[in-house]
Amino acid sequence: MKLSAIIGLVAAIPSAMAVTGNGGQIVNSAVNRYRDIINKESFVAPVDYKRGVLKTSGSLQGLVVSVESTDDTLGLDTDESYILDVPVDGKATLKAKSPYGALRGLETFSQLVTGNGNSKAILNTPIHIDDAPVYPHRGLLFDTARNFYSLDSIKRTLDAMSYNKMNVFHWHIVDAQSWPVESKTFPELQKNGAYSAAQTYSYNDVKQIIQYAKERGIRVIPEFDVPGHTYIVGLSKPELMSCMNKQPNWDHFAAEPPSGQLNIAKPETIDFTNKLIDEYTKLFPDEVFHVGGDEVNRNCWAEDPDVQKYLADHPGEDVESLLVNWYSKVHDHLETTGKQAYTWEETLFHSSYVPNNKTILQVWIDQASVQKAVSQGYRIVSSSYDSMYLDCGHGAWLSNWDGNSWCDPFKTWMHVYNYDVAANITDPKQKKLILGTEVAAWSEQIDETVIDPRLWPRAAAMAETAWSGKADASGHVRTTAEVASRLHEQRFRMVGRGINAEPMQPLWCARNPGACNLP
Amino acid sequence: MKLSAIIGLVAAIPSAMAVTGNGGQIVNSAVNRYRDIINKESFVAPVDYKRGVLKTSGSLQGLVVSVESTDDTLGLDTDESYILDVPVDGKATLKAKSPYGALRGLETFSQLVTGNGNSKAILNTPIHIDDAPVYPHRGLLFDTARNFYSLDSIKRTLDAMSYNKMNVFHWHIVDAQSWPVESKTFPELQKNGAYSAAQTYSYNDVKQIIQYAKERGIRVIPEFDVPGHTYIVGLSKPELMSCMNKQPNWDHFAAEPPSGQLNIAKPETIDFTNKLIDEYTKLFPDEVFHVGGDEVNRNCWAEDPDVQKYLADHPGEDVESLLVNWYSKVHDHLETTGKQAYTWEETLFHSSYVPNNKTILQVWIDQASVQKAVSQGYRIVSSSYDSMYLDCGHGAWLSNWDGNSWCDPFKTWMHVYNYDVAANITDPKQKKLILGTEVAAWSEQIDETVIDPRLWPRAAAMAETAWSGKADASGHVRTTAEVASRLHEQRFRMVGRGINAEPMQPLWCARNPGACNLP
Repeated sequence: MKLSAIIGLVAAIPSAMAVTGNGGQIVNSAVNRYRDIINKESFVAPVDYKRGVLKTSGSLQGLVVSVESTDDTLGLDTDESYILDVPVDGKATLKAKSPYGALRGLETFSQLVTGNGNSKAILNTPIHIDDAPVYPHRGLLFDTARNFYSLDSIKRTLDAMSYNKMNVFHWHIVDAQSWPVESKTFPELQKNGAYSAAQTYSYNDVKQIIQYAKERGIRVIPEFDVPGHTYIVGLSKPELMSCMNKQPNWDHFAAEPPSGQLNIAKPETIDFTNKLIDEYTKLFPDEVFHVGGDEVNRNCWAEDPDVQKYLADHPGEDVESLLVNWYSKVHDHLETTGKQAYTWEETLFHSSYVPNNKTILQVWIDQASVQKAVSQGYRIVSSSYDSMYLDCGHGAWLSNWDGNSWCDPFKTWMHVYNYDVAANITDPKQKKLILGTEVAAWSEQIDETVIDPRLWPRAAAMAETAWSGKADASGHVRTTAEVASRLHEQRFRMVGRGINAEPMQPLWCARNPGACNLP
Repeated sequence: MKLSAIIGLVAAIPSAMAVTGNGGQIVNSAVNRYRDIINKESFVAPVDYKRGVLKTSGSLQGLVVSVESTDDTLGLDTDESYILDVPVDGKATLKAKSPYGALRGLETFSQLVTGNGNSKAILNTPIHIDDAPVYPHRGLLFDTARNFYSLDSIKRTLDAMSYNKMNVFHWHIVDAQSWPVESKTFPELQKNGAYSAAQTYSYNDVKQIIQYAKERGIRVIPEFDVPGHTYIVGLSKPELMSCMNKQPNWDHFAAEPPSGQLNIAKPETIDFTNKLIDEYTKLFPDEVFHVGGDEVNRNCWAEDPDVQKYLADHPGEDVESLLVNWYSKVHDHLETTGKQAYTWEETLFHSSYVPNNKTILQVWIDQASVQKAVSQGYRIVSSSYDSMYLDCGHGAWLSNWDGNSWCDPFKTWMHVYNYDVAANITDPKQKKLILGTEVAAWSEQIDETVIDPRLWPRAAAMAETAWSGKADASGHVRTTAEVASRLHEQRFRMVGRGINAEPMQPLWCARNPGACNLP
């Protein structure tokens, strides 16, 4: 067997690779970034560790990037498709409809380049790739409230997302434990709620992150989780709260300590929330805005003296009607800002409230919710805890409890990869309502010391299924045995790029595909 | 309540703290190390985050370290006790019998120093500490064969061990997947068996690690695991092997791929092993030498044509008698080197071989083996997988299997802490045979990208129970609720010292002791 029969032709890459593009600021900055990556990197996949220097058949003179439109609006409708042609000789071309399609193609191109002795090459040329994502929402939930993350660690995570063509940074920016983000409307929230003056995000920090993400084709969707998960608000506004830090029986009032919810019997909590919405819908430009709505605890309100007094004065009302009214006022207000609401599935499925049909539901509890939601006409993103919660499997974290976590076991990359958000959904109209998937890194047991290995390469496994779907062009559903080599390669590439992705197996297995399968 | 009633007196620490000692090279190098740590560090425990500047009552002029003997022999009998006195004013004194006791006292002293505004202080002075370990073996098993670790990451791990008064680095240096260590007797083992020329440990590297460990009071016990776990030997010596890399049904022949065992029917494998023992018992000075002996697979031999032929020619013998003879020849030879054998529990409990009673058994499968072994007069170290295997709980790692690992779930720090190696053992003579405990970091799913958070702070939880035992002086068995604040403190201290220990909880919980307990 001739070598060319195995690998096709090999294009040499000159030591200073010319990448040129014309697509406005987004494409220009990406071209600079990828020129650096391609020139610096000399990556060889683990499976090729014994490969000798390959004879080249031609020399690639450059990569020319062009886009149909330089419009850099980034949203759910952004076209991320691209067409990449790499000849054996001469210039490669990358064509895209939008700047963000060009970014995806640049990432693909960078992954084609491999070390070849002291030089670099692209194997199997000529190459023609016509590529587009299956799902428009390929996200990561990042929780900066349970523990704080520096801007550097957020930027590194955005880099890593871009290496995997992920496009939504769901910034779960505040929660019960801390309020790191600046508020100009209520400065005391940050002042009293941040872990320290150093553990904060100013307006400038937020804008910097949004810009950094945008240059990588990543939308930043902020989440301000109300009315539960709000203990930290009470440090500044105790008059708005119910069941503040009940101890020791916090579990009667909240999913985790400290308990505390906005008091839904008080119209002031709607005013407060709507003012936050007014402020942060301006700071965060994305068309989608997440308003939480998860894990509200009825006991917290039912046992609150103010709520009890209100209900005594208003026969016919109850906690449920108060909650529906509350959700409704907040969602209606959000709609006036022009944003689409993004909300946890409980808002629909665990309450009597019926959100408007522009609302995007984030499913996490029950895979059946995906089907239920799309059959009711809602768009969904799935973060099914059983497959997408990358923090899980780390055991319980309550100090006095030697037990498992509610969401054990650990979600392996195989388990993440095998998840099918569209399982059992056949109606094409309903399928279109599936926007995608989102891995979550809840931070009770994570901070920046460990975020890289906790996310990667497992988030990359999700990213592939969200970009390429479950099946290849022939309809064959990809198996993890087939994917393993590719994911090893991507893991080692990411480590080379400065992301501390954890190893999947002994290096021996990475080098011997198929040898570490269960018979 | 007066402040002094809470915190005792506070001794100020001058900006350049004088630490002086007289105890030979070990103490002198430790004194330099801790002088640097104490001068550099300005640590405040998370629980004290709101503490204002404390008024000092005196000023500490220095710490004088003295030892009874400068003999720097490090072994099972090393005396690690120390007495530390910290007055409010003047000089603190640290007295120890051996240099290694002084090291432990220096670590304790460094942990007493806390930031106090722009200055430093020691709280609750005067302090008198009379301290000694409960167990002489407080170990970490480190596997450099499934994946490779750089010298830097090993040294960082040894630093971290010293911060937790751990004293045994069990270096599981080779295994089926790779042979990184130099052999002068069989150079081909490393040449063919290392993952790459860069992923190796030369004699000089090994000596450097042993010296680095010794200066931290840590013994290095190497493990050369025979006769199983030896596929990698077969790349150089195929004639010595049985069941080399059987595929795809490796699971019939080995606990994990690749299969391969030294052929116990061939006396050449005994010669080979004994030559390795001759070589490496010289390179590694410790009095204890680990010869593996775990997870041998009888099918591997029973189905080997050479073994079958041997048994056909030798009626009355069988695989079991061959194995007993093999163990016996190897252990007898090891004894002639003057070393004490350290071996996995299977050598006794899963074979008919009866090791001599100087042998130390490492229990990992069954907690009942601890009792069985000590009742038979063997010394033991426990690495009970259910509590001490820190790699577990990460799910399966075979590429095509979406399942749990055999040793799920994850071992939380609470679970590690709650382990009692001496459970149900009351006879003082038997109790003395318990040398201690050892956490294990098997590296199928670990390499240096993730070793820090995978080990710490959980190994610190083991370290405390191995140093201080399960109960305090009054007999009260410590609970994890009581320990949590101390371990948080240690975790943050380690992060400050450059160890990427993972967070145990939201910072909010670290700052609010007791608020994150299960009711």
